[in-house]
Amino acid sequence: MRVAIDAMGNDQGATPIIDGVKQFLSTYSDTSLILVGRPDVVRTELARVGLSEGEKIELVEASQVMEMKDKVASLREKKDSSIVRLVETVKAGKADAMVALGNTAAAVGATTLGLRHLKGVKRSGIAVPLPSRKGVCVVIDMGANTAAKPEHLMAYAVMASIYAEHVLGVKNPSVGLLNVGEEAGKGNEWLRQTYTMLETAPVNFLGNVEGHDIYEGACDVVVCDGFVGNVVLKASEALASTISLWLKESLLSSVISKFGAVFCQGAFKKLKKRINYESYGGAPLLGVNGICIIGHGRSSANAVYNALRVARESVIVGLNNLISEKLVETQRELELHPIDSNDNCAQPQAV
Amino acid sequence: MRVAIDAMGNDQGATPIIDGVKQFLSTYSDTSLILVGRPDVVRTELARVGLSEGEKIELVEASQVMEMKDKVASLREKKDSSIVRLVETVKAGKADAMVALGNTAAAVGATTLGLRHLKGVKRSGIAVPLPSRKGVCVVIDMGANTAAKPEHLMAYAVMASIYAEHVLGVKNPSVGLLNVGEEAGKGNEWLRQTYTMLETAPVNFLGNVEGHDIYEGACDVVVCDGFVGNVVLKASEALASTISLWLKESLLSSVISKFGAVFCQGAFKKLKKRINYESYGGAPLLGVNGICIIGHGRSSANAVYNALRVARESVIVGLNNLISEKLVETQRELELHPIDSNDNCAQPQAV
Repeated sequence: MRVAIDAMGNDQGATPIIDGVKQFLSTYSDTSLILVGRPDVVRTELARVGLSEGEKIELVEASQVMEMKDKVASLREKKDSSIVRLVETVKAGKADAMVALGNTAAAVGATTLGLRHLKGVKRSGIAVPLPSRKGVCVVIDMGANTAAKPEHLMAYAVMASIYAEHVLGVKNPSVGLLNVGEEAGKGNEWLRQTYTMLETAPVNFLGNVEGHDIYEGACDVVVCDGFVGNVVLKASEALASTISLWLKESLLSSVISKFGAVFCQGAFKKLKKRINYESYGGAPLLGVNGICIIGHGRSSANAVYNALRVARESVIVGLNNLISEKLVETQRELELHPIDSNDNCAQPQAV
Repeated sequence: MRVAIDAMGNDQGATPIIDGVKQFLSTYSDTSLILVGRPDVVRTELARVGLSEGEKIELVEASQVMEMKDKVASLREKKDSSIVRLVETVKAGKADAMVALGNTAAAVGATTLGLRHLKGVKRSGIAVPLPSRKGVCVVIDMGANTAAKPEHLMAYAVMASIYAEHVLGVKNPSVGLLNVGEEAGKGNEWLRQTYTMLETAPVNFLGNVEGHDIYEGACDVVVCDGFVGNVVLKASEALASTISLWLKESLLSSVISKFGAVFCQGAFKKLKKRINYESYGGAPLLGVNGICIIGHGRSSANAVYNALRVARESVIVGLNNLISEKLVETQRELELHPIDSNDNCAQPQAV
């Protein structure tokens, strides 16, 4: 099996990427990697960790990089960027999966344009596994589609359930629809239509859930519009790092707590690991015709390792075949029991 | 001055409310309180803390309670509920402000129906002060209006700015519009219209902000739709309490960290206080024709004290007069420079 990775898409340079590559190759002997990026940079980094091109490592050249500040439209000017070349590698069948890092909007844009959607999918969605009290909660969509229609949200539920079950190992994952109350009639017209569709969809649908349910472990998959998902993910990241910062400041504010903190280092490390969602291995872009895992623009070596790991796992389980089969089933169900769908605007409703 | 409070609206009974009442009365001698609820319950609680009806405490009887599970529609059947009687007390001019606790949807419904809106306001919004790296960030709306139009969002920006400046003491508060990117063209049609309106509104508008900016202190006021605000608030509360839980579990998992934690108690308390938004004193429902502060359904005595404190402060500064004056100015500005407004649906757009 071959997995391709964008060797340039990291805020902190290629070092953590190549460290993650080394960790991955020494763990999994059945997979070779294709590194996409500037040859000089990649070769220097490989030499640093004692690796070189060969049977396990192939280099695909790309002279440009989509920076974090670049808009999606810049893809047109940056045709030799690492993300564009990465997608081409998968499209040409040279790699079975890809790991994109860095500019998420560019990764979504390049992948969707290059690989197109799976049959039956109209919009792809970013599924982010977040830590919850009961283990993990996969939230889809985190920003690929900020005006998701009911049919998009239903496909998200199906795709994220398959990902949770077959890649993350969650048995019969339960699905919640993110809303402002638990009752079936809550939210705007689109959410009410989605609720009705999910009731007959081939997923373990629990009903509406609220913001707190993401972390309290009420369900394994939370389905939402990419606008809400994006805001929640970014707010959560910032809140968690703000709490960590305040904890550090509080501990350093007195000699007594400084002394105590020395003995708590192990506990703080354990906490950090639990909060950190890097261990879940990046966020799959579900619905595109290829395996695409999107990593953070500030990925550590461990995050890169885990992104490669779930990319490999997704290929092994045949993720996209499973998704396609299930979506055909869903489509058949919908044809038997059609649901009236219209594109009404959101209706005002108090929580 | 007189402030009325719902003495029944707490998940944990009237005890924390009366404790907060006692704390308030012993701090502020210029304000008397009106307690609304079941006479037997209120009198028993008052006796417990050595208080009784008199010059500083008046009792308004209400035989019913809007439970947390009650829908807003139940207000019709519960005409003698404490929240309905509370609103009536303000409407009749017997109280200068009210503090509602418990069922937020019921509080918003009863207050909006009973007091109506300030002139020039079409929708009220719940403004929640959240702790941020730079102090406090007021997020409006947290769920009163889940399909906010541009004109509603603009009024939110104006009202929350006044609240932040005059009640929370933030000088020339900066305002951000919650979006999925910083560029002016981001988000759906309504958000783009709101952006244009905010550019000419009498507020210190910084532009679009993202989810992380709430906690990272990028601005003092964040304006958003009540759907997004509600999800973010609930997710944040759950994430913060989940992190606290995990910190405790990690510390208890080894003898060494248990030992160290004994010396860190002061630091942990300091952290808890910083995360806890109770100290900001509840969330004002801005835009209604009266001062209404909404507290949490699980308010502690300290939260009740602070809600009463900001209710008093809002009366002293003449919050609603300040809001009305500024909205007239805004209206005049809009008439001079009208902005085309239409009610288009959200347009699909990737982040």
